Amino acid sequence: MTEPSLTAGERIDGLPSQNIRIIQNPDMFSYSLDAILLAHFADVKGKGRGHAVDLGAGTGAVGLFYAPKVSGRVTLVEIQPELAAMAQRSIDLNGMSDRVSVLQKDMKNIFEDIKPGSVETVLSNPPYFPLNDTTKTNHDHHYELARHELTIDLPNLAQIANKLLKNNGKFYMVHRPDRLADIFAAFAKRKLMIKRVQFVYGKAGREANMVLVEAIKSGRPGGVRILPPLIAYDETNDYTPEMNNILYGKAW
Amino acid sequence: MTEPSLTAGERIDGLPSQNIRIIQNPDMFSYSLDAILLAHFADVKGKGRGHAVDLGAGTGAVGLFYAPKVSGRVTLVEIQPELAAMAQRSIDLNGMSDRVSVLQKDMKNIFEDIKPGSVETVLSNPPYFPLNDTTKTNHDHHYELARHELTIDLPNLAQIANKLLKNNGKFYMVHRPDRLADIFAAFAKRKLMIKRVQFVYGKAGREANMVLVEAIKSGRPGGVRILPPLIAYDETNDYTPEMNNILYGKAW
Repeated sequence: MTEPSLTAGERIDGLPSQNIRIIQNPDMFSYSLDAILLAHFADVKGKGRGHAVDLGAGTGAVGLFYAPKVSGRVTLVEIQPELAAMAQRSIDLNGMSDRVSVLQKDMKNIFEDIKPGSVETVLSNPPYFPLNDTTKTNHDHHYELARHELTIDLPNLAQIANKLLKNNGKFYMVHRPDRLADIFAAFAKRKLMIKRVQFVYGKAGREANMVLVEAIKSGRPGGVRILPPLIAYDETNDYTPEMNNILYGKAW
Repeated sequence: MTEPSLTAGERIDGLPSQNIRIIQNPDMFSYSLDAILLAHFADVKGKGRGHAVDLGAGTGAVGLFYAPKVSGRVTLVEIQPELAAMAQRSIDLNGMSDRVSVLQKDMKNIFEDIKPGSVETVLSNPPYFPLNDTTKTNHDHHYELARHELTIDLPNLAQIANKLLKNNGKFYMVHRPDRLADIFAAFAKRKLMIKRVQFVYGKAGREANMVLVEAIKSGRPGGVRILPPLIAYDETNDYTPEMNNILYGKAW
């Protein structure tokens, strides 16, 4: 690996456990714990040879953190050209261009490039906030596109994920607990059966601030499993041992 | 209060924190932690003068544990005559016959007695298991009626709860997490907006084995809150301090 040349505002953040580095520009977009926990939560089918697709990849954090778990192709789909270009540079930085690639396009047009029913695993850390009359959005701003459902919403995301997946393929998503009813409704409409859910709590005694969801395409209904709670920080604002292990421990 | 005469197989179980005693017959049906946690989880609107209805009350545990929290009427609806009779005796035992009563009937016929849109709070600890081809059921057995969706299922329960409630009235239910997708679907169909959810874990590190749900009639969509996890037992199989407090601490 060669050191990349960084432009103004850029920096490199790493995830030690997975030995992956990501080029970031906090002025445009930064990945967060959400991306790490989604990549960690997502399982691998068999020997991991199947195609994995990260929908709304941003700078590529989810897909790049997941890539070391599998041996197959990983495709990062990102609508914003600047973020897609940074993701490509991070792929090169990590020496993964043999099997990780970027598609810079609206995920609604993904079927120009990827055959329906061909994907083993779909991952997504989508925009969390619904649009409504009071949403103050600047359509040109990178953060707004990543945070608000301007270009993609839950029903469309579920429809695209479902169409990409093989039967019994898995869709992994991180989202906010306050959207849980919307998540169940959108997934149920597309026969994405939610099978495994984990709630993440900032601290013990607080309400959950993140939810990790696994759904299976064309699975049987019922059988939702709620994993043990994951607590991020302890009383003194340090990472809990479990979180520390995800960030700095052995590769997943 | 006078001591009731118990028939063969009967015993009295108490909930010290609420100072309530319930006549039980383990050969027929016993309430469990689920009933206690549901009554504890359920909030009180204003001064608690509204009408509360316990759908599928069994021996009356949920309604009787909830009754000390409120000042209004509480109606226990139970289809099984033997259980309804025991619930009536427990009402008398606790000296609450002035405002707690039993309706022994199929909850589908509840509108013969209770006006639609008149109820502030609906509580239910319904049968947890869906019927399917492999369900071995004995339709005469009290436990089977309480455990399997023989006489009431989630869609019908949600429909009845919704019809009973005033606008902005609340529906509180305890169920199993593996039915979570069914719960969200049944509630969404009846515009019962899920607003507050708590998962109960037998022990730390285990998957959740119980879910408590609060829904509001005709509420705004979104805004689901996931409360801190409730852990029932510690490593040595004793109740956790939190659970101990619910059972033996101050009245709620």
